[in-house]
Amino acid sequence: MDVTGIGHACIDTIGLVPHLPALDEVLVMDATTRQGGGPVAQALVTLQRLGKKTAFHARLGDDTIAQEIRTGLEAEGVDCTHLLRDPGHVSNTSIILVDRATGKRSICAHRGDYHPIAPADLDLDALCAAPILHLDGHAPEAALHAAREARCRGRIVSMDAGHARDDLIPLAAAATLLIASEKFAMFATGTGDETAWGPTLRAMGPSTVVVTRGERGSLTWTADDHFVTPAFPVDVVDTTGAGDVFHGGYLYAVLEGRSPRECATIASAVAAMKCRSLGGRAGIPMLPALSRFLGDHGFTLERPPCGDFCGDE
Amino acid sequence: MDVTGIGHACIDTIGLVPHLPALDEVLVMDATTRQGGGPVAQALVTLQRLGKKTAFHARLGDDTIAQEIRTGLEAEGVDCTHLLRDPGHVSNTSIILVDRATGKRSICAHRGDYHPIAPADLDLDALCAAPILHLDGHAPEAALHAAREARCRGRIVSMDAGHARDDLIPLAAAATLLIASEKFAMFATGTGDETAWGPTLRAMGPSTVVVTRGERGSLTWTADDHFVTPAFPVDVVDTTGAGDVFHGGYLYAVLEGRSPRECATIASAVAAMKCRSLGGRAGIPMLPALSRFLGDHGFTLERPPCGDFCGDE
Repeated sequence: MDVTGIGHACIDTIGLVPHLPALDEVLVMDATTRQGGGPVAQALVTLQRLGKKTAFHARLGDDTIAQEIRTGLEAEGVDCTHLLRDPGHVSNTSIILVDRATGKRSICAHRGDYHPIAPADLDLDALCAAPILHLDGHAPEAALHAAREARCRGRIVSMDAGHARDDLIPLAAAATLLIASEKFAMFATGTGDETAWGPTLRAMGPSTVVVTRGERGSLTWTADDHFVTPAFPVDVVDTTGAGDVFHGGYLYAVLEGRSPRECATIASAVAAMKCRSLGGRAGIPMLPALSRFLGDHGFTLERPPCGDFCGDE
Repeated sequence: MDVTGIGHACIDTIGLVPHLPALDEVLVMDATTRQGGGPVAQALVTLQRLGKKTAFHARLGDDTIAQEIRTGLEAEGVDCTHLLRDPGHVSNTSIILVDRATGKRSICAHRGDYHPIAPADLDLDALCAAPILHLDGHAPEAALHAAREARCRGRIVSMDAGHARDDLIPLAAAATLLIASEKFAMFATGTGDETAWGPTLRAMGPSTVVVTRGERGSLTWTADDHFVTPAFPVDVVDTTGAGDVFHGGYLYAVLEGRSPRECATIASAVAAMKCRSLGGRAGIPMLPALSRFLGDHGFTLERPPCGDFCGDE
C-alpha cells in the first residue's frame, strides 16, 4: 500500500451549459456527465492512475449513491475493504453546472445524513500500513486521531485544507505536508498577505506548506526553500476537482522521491490535464499521458531527478 | 396489452434548491433525486401503477443512461421487448433544478444523438395489439406511420402534444384523443382565445380534445360536450412530469370505460398526487392511493360509473 486516505466521497452530476438557466427556462446542455468526486477519493484515483496502490477508509450511507461511489473507486483499483456503510442513511451527491464561457461552476450540494467514520471504527494498523496518510477534513475526529497515530509512527500525513473551517485547523497542525487553498490560508493565518502564509502555517506544525492558487500557480514553503510554481496553460473546460487531483499528483511525486519543486510541477501538470475534461474524474491522466504532457513542456520524468526538470533545484 | 407507446424516455437528475445558484456559488440542496422521465415513458409507468399492462416501443442510445432507462421501466412492469439500442450513441438526460419557493423549474437538457425508431423498425402488429396507442411526438415519422395504421385498425390513438412544434401538427391530426398543453393549443390554432381551441383542434381530426392548464385545470371538448375540470389543490413540491402522468391517468380511466368528465377528473387527481413529490416518477400513485385521494375529495372509483362522481354527466 502506498497511500491510505480518510475523506469525503460523493457523486457529481455535471452539466456544461451555455449560461446558467433562469426559472421556467429550458436550455440545451453542451455535455453532461456523472462522476465520482470528493477530495481524498479523487486524490486516490489519481494515484491509482499513476500506478500507486491506495485504500479508502470512510463511511457512506447505504443508498444507491454509496454503491455507485464504491463501484467507481473499485473500478480504479482503490482498496475499499475499509469503506463502511451507515444503514438507512443517504450519501453525498452534487449537481454542478459549468459555464461554457468562463469554466466557472455553480455547485448544488446535497449532504448525506450518515455518521462519518469515527475514531472507534478506524483500523489504525491498516491506515498506517502505507508511508502516506491523506486527509481532507471529512470525519475530523477520526481524521485527527489517525493523523496523530500516523505521525507517531513516522508516516507522512498529508492534509488537503480546502475550506475556511475552524475544525480544519487542528488537522492542518497535525499534518506534515499541508496543501491548502488560498481560502484556507487566508482564514487560518488571518491575512491576505501571501508572504506570511508559509511561515505562519509552518509554525503550526507542517514541515512543508503548499498553497494552490488556481491558474496563478502554487506557492511552496519548506524548511529551507520558498518558491512559486506556475500553472500549465491549458484550454480549460472544467476546473471541478483540479485541487483534488493536484494532491494526488503531488503524493505520487513524493512516493517517487521527487524534490518539493518537482512535486509541485508534477502536481500542477496533473491538475492542468484534468481541467481539459468535463467532470472531476474523466481527465485524470494515466502515467504515460502525464509523462508525454511533461515532455511537451520541457520536463522529463526520467530518473535521475536532475537535468532540465530539476535544474532549478 | 392495454396500452402501447412510442415516445421519449430519459433520465432526470433533479435538485430542490432554495434559489437558483449564481456562478461560483455553492448552495445546499433541500433534496435531490434521479428518476426516469419522458412523456410516454411516464404515462406507461402511471398505467402500470394503476394496474394496466403496457409496452414501450422506442430506440435509445447504448450507454449507461439507456440501461438505466430500461431497468427503471422494467421495474415498473413495462414491456421493453421492443426497446431498441443504437450502438455507439448516447441517450437523453436532463438536469432539473426546482425552486423551493415557487416549484418552478429550470431544465438543462442533453439531447442524445441516437437515431429515433424509424417506420421500418416498427412491429405494427405488436403496436396495434392494445386498444390504445400513446404518442408524444418523439420519432415523429415512425409515430405518424403507427398512428395511421392503429387508426385504420380501430384503435384509440392518444397524442401528448406538449410543445409548439410544427411536426406535431400531423400527429395531432392523426390522433383520436388529443391531450395538449396550452402552448401547443395556442401554436396549432394561432390564437390565445381558449374557446376557439377545441373546435379548431377537433376540426383537424381528433374526436376528443383536452387542453391542460396546470393549476387552472383542464378544458375538454367532445362531439357533444365542452367542460372545465378543476385541478385538485395540493401542496406542490415539483410539477415535473405532471402533464405526462395526466395522460397515464386519463388512459387508465378510458380503459375502465369512464366518461370524458370522469377521465379528466381521474387524470387531474393523478397529476396532483404526483406534484407532492420531487421528481417525475416518485409521486405517481398506485390504484389504492388514487382511490383514497379521490374518496377524500368526494369522488368514488366504485362501479357503476354514476352517482356523485359522475353526477354531472
